[in-house]
Amino acid sequence: MADQAKDTTAVPTDPSLNPAGAGSSAQQPATEGGEGGAEVSKKGAKKAEAKAKKEAEKARKAAEREALAASSSAASSVDLAKDNYGQISHTTKIPASLIHLRDLKEEHVGQKVKVRAWIQNARMQGAKMAFVELREEGSWTVQGVVSVSPEGEPVSKQMVKWIGGLKLESFVAVEATVQRPLEPVKSCRVSGFELHFQKVYLVAKAPEMLGLGLGPASRAVGRLDEEEVVEEKVEGLTINEGTPLASLATHLNNPAMHKRAPVSQAIADIRIAVEDLFCEYLKQNRFKKFHPPSLIGAASEGGANVFRMPYFEKEAYLAQSPQFYKQFEIAGGRKRVYCVGPVFRAENSNTPRHMTEFIGLDLEMEIEEHYHEVLHMLENVFLYIFRGLTTDYREEIELVRSVYPSEEFLLPEPGKEVRLTFAEGQALLRSEGPPEFANVSDTEDMSTPQEKALGALVRKKFNTDFYVLDKFPIDARPFYAMPDPENPAVTNAYDFMMRGQEILSGGQRLHLPEELEKTIRAKGLDPNQPGIKEYVDVFKSVGVPPHGGGGIGLDRVVAWYLNLPSVHLVCDYPRTPKRLSP
Amino acid sequence: MADQAKDTTAVPTDPSLNPAGAGSSAQQPATEGGEGGAEVSKKGAKKAEAKAKKEAEKARKAAEREALAASSSAASSVDLAKDNYGQISHTTKIPASLIHLRDLKEEHVGQKVKVRAWIQNARMQGAKMAFVELREEGSWTVQGVVSVSPEGEPVSKQMVKWIGGLKLESFVAVEATVQRPLEPVKSCRVSGFELHFQKVYLVAKAPEMLGLGLGPASRAVGRLDEEEVVEEKVEGLTINEGTPLASLATHLNNPAMHKRAPVSQAIADIRIAVEDLFCEYLKQNRFKKFHPPSLIGAASEGGANVFRMPYFEKEAYLAQSPQFYKQFEIAGGRKRVYCVGPVFRAENSNTPRHMTEFIGLDLEMEIEEHYHEVLHMLENVFLYIFRGLTTDYREEIELVRSVYPSEEFLLPEPGKEVRLTFAEGQALLRSEGPPEFANVSDTEDMSTPQEKALGALVRKKFNTDFYVLDKFPIDARPFYAMPDPENPAVTNAYDFMMRGQEILSGGQRLHLPEELEKTIRAKGLDPNQPGIKEYVDVFKSVGVPPHGGGGIGLDRVVAWYLNLPSVHLVCDYPRTPKRLSP
Repeated sequence: MADQAKDTTAVPTDPSLNPAGAGSSAQQPATEGGEGGAEVSKKGAKKAEAKAKKEAEKARKAAEREALAASSSAASSVDLAKDNYGQISHTTKIPASLIHLRDLKEEHVGQKVKVRAWIQNARMQGAKMAFVELREEGSWTVQGVVSVSPEGEPVSKQMVKWIGGLKLESFVAVEATVQRPLEPVKSCRVSGFELHFQKVYLVAKAPEMLGLGLGPASRAVGRLDEEEVVEEKVEGLTINEGTPLASLATHLNNPAMHKRAPVSQAIADIRIAVEDLFCEYLKQNRFKKFHPPSLIGAASEGGANVFRMPYFEKEAYLAQSPQFYKQFEIAGGRKRVYCVGPVFRAENSNTPRHMTEFIGLDLEMEIEEHYHEVLHMLENVFLYIFRGLTTDYREEIELVRSVYPSEEFLLPEPGKEVRLTFAEGQALLRSEGPPEFANVSDTEDMSTPQEKALGALVRKKFNTDFYVLDKFPIDARPFYAMPDPENPAVTNAYDFMMRGQEILSGGQRLHLPEELEKTIRAKGLDPNQPGIKEYVDVFKSVGVPPHGGGGIGLDRVVAWYLNLPSVHLVCDYPRTPKRLSP
Repeated sequence: MADQAKDTTAVPTDPSLNPAGAGSSAQQPATEGGEGGAEVSKKGAKKAEAKAKKEAEKARKAAEREALAASSSAASSVDLAKDNYGQISHTTKIPASLIHLRDLKEEHVGQKVKVRAWIQNARMQGAKMAFVELREEGSWTVQGVVSVSPEGEPVSKQMVKWIGGLKLESFVAVEATVQRPLEPVKSCRVSGFELHFQKVYLVAKAPEMLGLGLGPASRAVGRLDEEEVVEEKVEGLTINEGTPLASLATHLNNPAMHKRAPVSQAIADIRIAVEDLFCEYLKQNRFKKFHPPSLIGAASEGGANVFRMPYFEKEAYLAQSPQFYKQFEIAGGRKRVYCVGPVFRAENSNTPRHMTEFIGLDLEMEIEEHYHEVLHMLENVFLYIFRGLTTDYREEIELVRSVYPSEEFLLPEPGKEVRLTFAEGQALLRSEGPPEFANVSDTEDMSTPQEKALGALVRKKFNTDFYVLDKFPIDARPFYAMPDPENPAVTNAYDFMMRGQEILSGGQRLHLPEELEKTIRAKGLDPNQPGIKEYVDVFKSVGVPPHGGGGIGLDRVVAWYLNLPSVHLVCDYPRTPKRLSP
C-alpha cells in the first residue's frame, strides 16, 4: 500500500475502501488534511495509471456492493430516519439558521445550526457511529459526530453508515447541535466545538477518485513543469510529512483541488493584497486609473515576441505593455495615472519566471523637477505594499512559509533606502563580487547571475532585500528612455530589485518628438513604421510635459517576496508556451 | 473665415495668425475654451484638407517671418529679460515653490509661485501686454498677465511678444506673482486670482495646427463613426455654441486633445468610480478578487465570435467572458469571487453599443438557499454604485450633462425594487405596449425594441430606470443556466435593465456534471468537445455547491447611466471592427 501511495495521485475518496478499518492513518491520513497522492515520476506514470484504473474499478464495485447492501437492509427494516439524510432536492428544508464555521461561538452551544461545507474526512467508528470533518472557506474545519440514537430514531444505522461513507470533497448541508467536545479537537481549526448531526444531505458528490488529494495539494510542489528548473530545493516541509509531493503539473491539472489547499488560498489572498495596496497608495496620491487596450493595431516594439491574429480584414496584436497608453494619458492632460491588467509576451521561455500572459501593475506621472520624483514614488509604493503585507497578512505569510520556507524579506530602515547607480553596482561586483564578475562593464546590461550576485552583496552590506539600481546604460534601455542630460551614455532609468531579481523597470521618457525620432533612428528603427509613428504623432499633436513611470509584474512581486519556486504558483491560471488550460 | 472654421478641424494654434487682432472671439474664441474646429462632412473633407494645408503653409511662413523679426530685433537691442523666457533646459531654475491651480488661496496673494500648465489661450493686448490663460488638471484655469515693465526690465517687449505668441496647448513653466484681479475673471475656473508673470519657459511646444481644438473637443460629438447610427439626437449644447461639432472619429483620432476636454475627464472619472464602487461593495461583502486568463486553449461556446491566433505549436483564443473561470474559483473553495478585466468579441457589429474588447465586471457566489441571494446581491451592487455616483460625483455628472443632456436616472425607492418575471414583462408589453408587441411570446428572447418599449412602460408605471427581469425562457439562455425546478421551461436566470437596455446577464448555473451534460446535449453541443470537456471535468473532479452570478459591461453602465450616444465615448481606447488605434 505504501508503494501504491507513492505511485499515484488518483486517490480513492471512499473510506470504506480502507481494508485496515477506520482510523488507519497510514493509508488514509485525512485527519491531518491529506488523503494520499503522489508525484508521478516519468517512469512510474504508466504503472500509476494502471493502478489508478484498477483502484477506480475496485471503488466502483465496492460502491455497487454497498448500494445493494443498503437497499436490501432498507427493505428488511423500516428506516425511521430516511427523511434526515440522502441526496438534497429543491424541496428539502433545514429550518435551523445557517452559520459559518469561522463564526461558531460559545453562545451556540446547545443550539441547532445549519452548516454547508465540504467533507474533509469521514470514517466509521464501529457500526453505530461516524466521525466527519467538515471544511469551509479554505481552512475552517470542524469535527462532526453522528451516532445511532438509543431510541432508534431519528438517527438510524443506515443513516450513520451512509454518512460514514460520504466521499471526500463532497459538499453537504447538515443540521446539527453545537456541543463542547470532551477535549479540544486538535485536528480541526475550530477545536472548541463539535457538531452533532441530526440531518445530513448530499448537495454535490465528489467522484470515487480525486485527481489530487487535499494532502498533497496542501504541500509544496515536488517538481516544476517539464523543462523548468527548480532553482531552490524545497525543504523543511511541515504539513503531512508522510505523504509524497505532487508535481506542479498535477496541481495545475487539478485546479479545484489545487485551489482548495489553504496554502493556495493564502498565496491568492496575498496576491490580491499586493494589487489592492498598489491601487490604494496611488489613489491616495491622486493617481487616476485607466484601462489600456489589449488589442493593438501594430507591433510597437519591432515585432518580436508579440502575439498576432487575424482581425476582420486587418491584423491585430496583443499589447506587450501599456507603456504607450500610459504616456497618451499624460499627453491627454492627466498628471498621474496607473493601470492594472494583462500583458502578453509570445516568448518561448519555459522557466519558473516566465508566463505568456501576466498581470502588470503600471504607473506614469508628470515630472515637475526631477525624475527621482517618480523613483521615490515607486519606492514608496513598494514600501507601502511590504508594510501592508507584514501588518495585515502575517497569518497568510506564515501559512505559506510553513509549506515554502523562506527568510523574512529584509527592508531598508525608513529614510535609508538603498539606491546605487548602475556603475556603482558594477564597481561593487568587480571589487567584492565572485571572480567571474571581476571585469563587468558599465555600458552593458546585467545578466541574471550578475543581478543575483549583486543582490547578495547588497544584502550583506546594507541589510536589505529591496533596493534600486539607477542610471542604466543607454544600450540597455528602449528608445523612449530619457538620456541623462549631463551624461548621455546613461539614462534616467532604473530597475528595482527584490532578493537579487529585477522586479520593476522604469524611468523618465522622452517627451519631445524630435528627440524621440532621433533615438528611434539611433536604435535602428524607423520613426515612420506602424505603431511607432502613431506613438510619435501624439507627442507632435500637442505639448507633453516631462514624465516617467514604471511597470511591475504582479506575480513576480509575490513570488520573490515569499521566495516561491515559481510564479506559476502565484498566478490564478498560469499561461506558458505549453499551458493554455484550464 | 467663418466658412473655413466650419470646414476644418485642423486649427491654427498661433494667435498671431488672427488678422482681426487680439480679442476677436469670432475667429478665436479660446477665452471660452475653444479655438475653432469642425465636423468634416464627407463632401467637404477634401476641400477641408486643402484648406488645412494652405493654412499650415501660411502658419509656417508667418512663423518664419516672426522668427526673423525676433532675431533682428534681438540684434538691434539688448534684451535684458533674455534669461527670463524661452525654451527650458535642464539647467533652468525657477526658485519659487510649485503650486497647483486648484490650491491657489488668499494667502498666496503677493507671493511668487511656480506653475506648470498648458496654454489654453494667449493673446497680445497692444504691443506691450499679453494675456495668457493657463490650464492644469482638466479644467483648472487661471488668467496670466505679462506686460513690459516701466523700467525696461526684467520684462522686455520681446518677452511679451514671445509669450503672446505661444502656441495653444503648449506646456510651460512660469514664475509669477499672485494678484487679485480688478474684477473676477469669468472665463477661468480660478476667477479670484490672476498670475503676473516674471518668467515663462516653454517646456513642450504644441504644433502650428491642432488636429482638434479644445473647443470642439469639449462639446458633444456631431456624428458617430461610419456605419454607426446616432440613436438620440444631441440637443441643448451649452458649451461654446458658436463652434461646430467634431465627429467621434475626429475625437478618437486626436486622443490627446479629446482627453484634455473636461467632459472626457469627467466621463473617465465616473467610469473608474463605477469600477471602484463595484469592487468596494463586493470587498465589504467578503468577495475575493481573482484574475481570469485572456488566453484560452479552446473556444468554449461553440467557436462563434471568438478571436483565434497561432500560439507556438497550438492555437489560442481570446476569452469571451470569465464565466468558466469564475465557476472554477467556486469549485476551488471560494465562497464569493469577482473580477475586473478585458473580454473579447470578434463580432462584426458596428453600432454605438458594441466593442470588440471591453472591461467586464463579473461576480460569482455560492448559493445557500435560493438563487435570489445572487439577484439581491447584484441589485445591491448597482444601488451602491448609483448612490455613490449621486453622492460623490454630482459635479462630474453635471459637467457631462452640460454637454450631453440627460434626465436624472430614476432609482426605485429602497425596498421597492422592481422585479418582473420575463412572462410578466411580456404580458405588460402585450396589454399596454405598442401594437407591434401585442403578440410577443413567453418562450422567445426579447428584441432590443421590445426591451426599450418595456423599459418605457416600467418607467411610467414604477418610476424607475432600473429594474430586473427574471426567469428567462430556457431557449434564451446558455447551456450552463439552471432550469427552474418547478418549471423547466424557464431558468433561474435574469437580466438587469437600465433605461430600457440590458446591462447585466446572470443567473444560477448548473453545478452537477450529469445535468450539465444533459443540457449541453439538448443545445446540440458535444460535452466532449474541447473547451466544454475541460469545463465539465472540473464539476466531475470534486463536489461543487450551487452558485450563480452575473457579468456587467463597464462602459455600458456608464453610457446608459449618463445617456451618452455611444459606449465609444466611455471606453479609454475603444476597439471596434474598424478601429485598433491609437
